[in-house]
Amino acid sequence: VPSGPFARPFVYPIVDADALRGRPVAAAVRALAEGGAALVQVRAKTLPDGALLGFAREALAAARAAGLRLFVNDRADVARIAGADGVHVGQEDLPPAACRTVLGAGALVGLSTHDLAQVSAAVREPIDYLAVGPVFPTRTKANPDPVVGLDLVRRARDLWSGPLVAIGGITAANAAEVVRAGADGVAVISALLDADDLRDAVRRLQGALGGRA
Amino acid sequence: VPSGPFARPFVYPIVDADALRGRPVAAAVRALAEGGAALVQVRAKTLPDGALLGFAREALAAARAAGLRLFVNDRADVARIAGADGVHVGQEDLPPAACRTVLGAGALVGLSTHDLAQVSAAVREPIDYLAVGPVFPTRTKANPDPVVGLDLVRRARDLWSGPLVAIGGITAANAAEVVRAGADGVAVISALLDADDLRDAVRRLQGALGGRA
Repeated sequence: VPSGPFARPFVYPIVDADALRGRPVAAAVRALAEGGAALVQVRAKTLPDGALLGFAREALAAARAAGLRLFVNDRADVARIAGADGVHVGQEDLPPAACRTVLGAGALVGLSTHDLAQVSAAVREPIDYLAVGPVFPTRTKANPDPVVGLDLVRRARDLWSGPLVAIGGITAANAAEVVRAGADGVAVISALLDADDLRDAVRRLQGALGGRA
Repeated sequence: VPSGPFARPFVYPIVDADALRGRPVAAAVRALAEGGAALVQVRAKTLPDGALLGFAREALAAARAAGLRLFVNDRADVARIAGADGVHVGQEDLPPAACRTVLGAGALVGLSTHDLAQVSAAVREPIDYLAVGPVFPTRTKANPDPVVGLDLVRRARDLWSGPLVAIGGITAANAAEVVRAGADGVAVISALLDADDLRDAVRRLQGALGGRA
């Protein structure tokens, strides 16, 4: 049974620099922690690398103070330099094993998958959690992958015994059925960052998932 | 006096994935070595990270076989994973000292500068070579920095005693005056990759620079 940040059911907020609407990232991370999150991912696909590093460092200082684990999207070098807990990569990013050579032994690595073939390959990779999606339609990505539905969550659950994260269009209204389909956690961007009160938004989402095991 | 790959005057070819026009990168690297290059940089700003890693690995295998030092543009993680000799970063990329925490002690780091203030700051960074440019107009970059002319090469030479690389619009026709202005080496993309015979193009450029010290 996963414990710590992956204790089921968990909310996995993704803090996108382009969705903060002027809020300092440190304040956002603090609010997420106060709302009950135990881990957080930062991403900033439109920032130059130096600015991304600054963004990750600000987020990490707040995450450390609040006891959150922090993942950096895509970039193993930025994660290593900032001293983050790990990295989250997609199918076209650096492979998990390669990320580990940059991050060292204790690092956590998560991997996104978007169909059954990718799930089947991912379970043989050196990863700490597996992400599947988009489960529902989402408007966060400019060119989203096809919606995979709860069916891929169920199939991934059959193939993968580690922490399983569902992503894509998940809200307080549909989160419970995602967990019932087998997800340990739900990753969310819009449903949290669109809210004016981040702390309250995490609490409502965690409430919808049911209490922590 | 610099020796090895930085023995003056040197040609520093940049192999851009978008400028190869179908040539395999390994063949390009071999031709550059046969033409007299002692170091090479690879960049692929439009490739996904996984493909960039594959590109860097192919280039590195050829570089190792030919005795060339290989730098990866921008990405310390890719350089580390591929086992490249170093990384080249710009003003908005990860800082040189941060790259060193990813790459380890023996790695080489180069830094681009585009005005006197950047040169003055760069000479205090932990770098192995300093690049200045664009010395002449160039069409390789979509949004090039303002042309700095030979004047910035001279001023950089006054401030920096390590290997000095000039870049931007350099050809066999103007390379000699760039070296006379104080550059140890000239970095070139278009003038080499536009040529059908890469080996011959490097030879002509090296000939225009004068023999190696």
